Amino acid sequence: MRIALAQYNYHIGNFEYNTGKIISGIHKAKSQQADLVVFAELSVCGYPSGDFLEFKDYIDKCYGAIDEIALHCQGIAAIVGAPHRNTNSKGKPLYNAAYFLEDGKVKQIYLKGLLPNYDIFDEYRYFEPATEFNIVTCKGKRIALTICEDLWNLYDNPLYTRNPMDQLAEKGADFMINIAASPFAWDHGGERKNMLSQNASRYRMPLYYVNQVGAQTELIFDGGSMAINAHGGITHEMESFSESMLIIETDETDHKTGTKPSPDADYDKKIESIYKALVSGVKDYFGKLGFSKAILGLSGGIDSAVTMVIAAEALGAENVLGVLMPGQFSSDHSVKDAEDLANTLGCPYYTIPITDTTARFEENLKPWFKELPFDVAEENIQARTRAVYLMALSNKFGYVLLNTSNKSEAAVGYGTLYGDMCGGLSVLGDVYKTDVFRMAGFINRESEIIPVNTILKPPSAELRADQKDSDSLPEYDILDKVLFQYIEKRKGPDELVQMGFEKKLIDRILKLVNTCEYKRYQTPPILRVSSKAFGMGRKMPIVARYLG
Amino acid sequence: MRIALAQYNYHIGNFEYNTGKIISGIHKAKSQQADLVVFAELSVCGYPSGDFLEFKDYIDKCYGAIDEIALHCQGIAAIVGAPHRNTNSKGKPLYNAAYFLEDGKVKQIYLKGLLPNYDIFDEYRYFEPATEFNIVTCKGKRIALTICEDLWNLYDNPLYTRNPMDQLAEKGADFMINIAASPFAWDHGGERKNMLSQNASRYRMPLYYVNQVGAQTELIFDGGSMAINAHGGITHEMESFSESMLIIETDETDHKTGTKPSPDADYDKKIESIYKALVSGVKDYFGKLGFSKAILGLSGGIDSAVTMVIAAEALGAENVLGVLMPGQFSSDHSVKDAEDLANTLGCPYYTIPITDTTARFEENLKPWFKELPFDVAEENIQARTRAVYLMALSNKFGYVLLNTSNKSEAAVGYGTLYGDMCGGLSVLGDVYKTDVFRMAGFINRESEIIPVNTILKPPSAELRADQKDSDSLPEYDILDKVLFQYIEKRKGPDELVQMGFEKKLIDRILKLVNTCEYKRYQTPPILRVSSKAFGMGRKMPIVARYLG
Repeated sequence: MRIALAQYNYHIGNFEYNTGKIISGIHKAKSQQADLVVFAELSVCGYPSGDFLEFKDYIDKCYGAIDEIALHCQGIAAIVGAPHRNTNSKGKPLYNAAYFLEDGKVKQIYLKGLLPNYDIFDEYRYFEPATEFNIVTCKGKRIALTICEDLWNLYDNPLYTRNPMDQLAEKGADFMINIAASPFAWDHGGERKNMLSQNASRYRMPLYYVNQVGAQTELIFDGGSMAINAHGGITHEMESFSESMLIIETDETDHKTGTKPSPDADYDKKIESIYKALVSGVKDYFGKLGFSKAILGLSGGIDSAVTMVIAAEALGAENVLGVLMPGQFSSDHSVKDAEDLANTLGCPYYTIPITDTTARFEENLKPWFKELPFDVAEENIQARTRAVYLMALSNKFGYVLLNTSNKSEAAVGYGTLYGDMCGGLSVLGDVYKTDVFRMAGFINRESEIIPVNTILKPPSAELRADQKDSDSLPEYDILDKVLFQYIEKRKGPDELVQMGFEKKLIDRILKLVNTCEYKRYQTPPILRVSSKAFGMGRKMPIVARYLG
Repeated sequence: MRIALAQYNYHIGNFEYNTGKIISGIHKAKSQQADLVVFAELSVCGYPSGDFLEFKDYIDKCYGAIDEIALHCQGIAAIVGAPHRNTNSKGKPLYNAAYFLEDGKVKQIYLKGLLPNYDIFDEYRYFEPATEFNIVTCKGKRIALTICEDLWNLYDNPLYTRNPMDQLAEKGADFMINIAASPFAWDHGGERKNMLSQNASRYRMPLYYVNQVGAQTELIFDGGSMAINAHGGITHEMESFSESMLIIETDETDHKTGTKPSPDADYDKKIESIYKALVSGVKDYFGKLGFSKAILGLSGGIDSAVTMVIAAEALGAENVLGVLMPGQFSSDHSVKDAEDLANTLGCPYYTIPITDTTARFEENLKPWFKELPFDVAEENIQARTRAVYLMALSNKFGYVLLNTSNKSEAAVGYGTLYGDMCGGLSVLGDVYKTDVFRMAGFINRESEIIPVNTILKPPSAELRADQKDSDSLPEYDILDKVLFQYIEKRKGPDELVQMGFEKKLIDRILKLVNTCEYKRYQTPPILRVSSKAFGMGRKMPIVARYLG
């Protein structure tokens, strides 16, 4: 049997686009003599569709698309993902389903049993979990078809009380197919391979896995679709972050020697994979919203430099405008470093000094500020004045403003709300400062794209005289370690002490994180590259008083 | 048997505060010879606790609090809400539980069976649903104890496939107790009463209902705790939005005649109840975060006027600072209307003309804007300049900025991001413009607090010459009707046409709503007073292309 794995990029709610793409995939697979072509989870409507799923109209459109796609399944079968209405009198109104299409119609529907409802997932919001699972038959082969999370209920403390694959294995199958919408995180690729390999070994069946690619706002899908033999060895693996189709003879998978995933295979490539993910994230945010040009404030610092490089790769250097806005406390080298970067990349840049504008604000505030000392109010006026300039250019010429904050800053609230926290999209908001430095090294691996001075000078917001980040914050190497344990690993204060961190330092950092929820609530969507990003996947109450 | 219903206001994560409040409630009830005192759902940690529930440390603190509270249950029993660890090898790590405390210890634990996971609720994120339900026995009485949603599975298409009360009723009980964390919505009070009344009638048992009061960021809890006799008649009802304790003899409920709720009882009081809810919301946002002073931009328009009145009632007029910031297109009457309002209320106000500052921005942008016509870029410069002044005063003196946008504007994106969309809290973001007008009428019911001119003049942002809202938007009375059906009732375009709205108008409005998700993503938390507010309860993908 010839299976085509279609690793495609869908667009939420854009039925015409998705349907067209799926239909052309069917014809392409057929032209290559495939018997079955497999598309990703919820490929018909895009994942995640959010509350659009609550609209009758949206589900009608899904049904219409399935009917249209089915008509093209002549001489070839297809598996596509779409919601399915729950016709029972009880339970949520929808299922998350995989449609098996053959001979011009819907032949069978598989309903997802395990619904992820953690981190960025909220499938219980819309879907009823299925409890009965049946084999799909195609050209005499018995297929154990599952959807994404259905295969994840392994290990000692499974999150779910059921296991769909156990039921399917009992009914007997020749191989497994899993269709997924599994987003990228730098440490998730390894986990995913292990999980898939363990399923293949456990059920002694080959497994064909189809994930989607492309980004949907903050979520980046890396693909990594693959085939695994019955011993858990990976026999075929598709290129990450790119659309393609792979044709596999199932007999071939059975006999081919595969590679067992090593537990930390992806760790080595952490920075490179994050970089690729961010490029893909920026590209799709602009492409799917219909924008082509980005603007960003260029400070001469490392965050805006790395952001500009990523944007230039995603959109083309000529479409990325840097704006230098030197203020009262900006250093000469900052301006020069920023200019050097823009010139090296070939990005246009404007220079708008802000000193006269901030002076105007301060002058007009004199009747109330009187002789009160310079403090965070005056610092923020500078950051916010820059935001007004950036947004004015954005509004006038149709640029989308890129936010350049990193995850360390976002965590401890070291940024100005409505100032440098502005933007349509945060590129580095899920990358700790220490990883931003590593990424600058990766970018410069062959030549000096980011000025060495930008990398070597101590980080500073330059909002008051001789300011350094380290005046207000612990050193980044220690700060990032604590943040990683608290945010990604959910380690509380006692556990952090047990891990060897100093109690006073932990209290200081956790207090900063917990008292800044109000700021993060209003940040732009952040491209997610870790297992716990700020944004939709981390829900913290603003008015709480806990460790803060 | 004497039952004390404790309708209290808790603070998320503030274990010392919540525990102290519960313990003093136990002693108060005991001093009034109560046999049992009942507190609300998750009263020990506060509701909703969000991802704090994923921290071992947080759950340890819940357990510690329960132990401490139990020690005070001598000669009196208590029911309190807290998470409970799932010790089975499968499923989510926690249950949402009610602890029955007696004789100084935990006597029994009831686990919630129906977990809401829609709108603002996401209980499947943290909790495993229970499937077995047992009667609690107290002083010889058999109590069918349930938690909030457990009672909501009525009617023809229940959301859940199980019904805990059916199990409990089969086991035989004398009466029901339901502990809740049920947030306010203007049309929810009536629904809630009907649901409770129907449960009492259906199971032929009296029902004691305890809800919490107070606000947790955007969620406002109105209380409305009550007793209902076995015929579904409400015999006792506690005052909304205020903390109190009510002692009831159970024999009394059995024989007392109650009032059956009328289906639309609360509709008449819609505007008054929203007003009270917003006052409570502002009060708790400030109180729980430890702030006392608010600042807001005062334009002379109706939104900022109503916001100021609410803030003055919540915080005291002297703690609400209005800032008048006339610009190039501000009318004389706007300044006078704003001054009149502040003077009537007794609120302080500052006046800061912005014309010289906006001129500075425009001057510095000349090299790029050249002779391009005045457009939204220049309009937004004015709104953003005002935001810089407001935030500077906020930063310097510790004011929290109140956002004054209404729901109609938020829906169609008629506001400036980082301009008038700024603020720590949005007071009117869930109130349609037509209801803001009604609320102004309610505020002025006895005397002219809001200047009549503010109410009568046509709404205008005053960001360009002779601008009116109606230049860009449909008239509010028709706009708000369409928005209500689309947002609250999830009616799609076809259904709206069937309801009699004009197709062209619907397309225009839906396109505005759907293409503005990126703006709403960055708005402040919005006090929720409807069944569907923007914010945590409405999840729409930004990059979608659907009806937009």
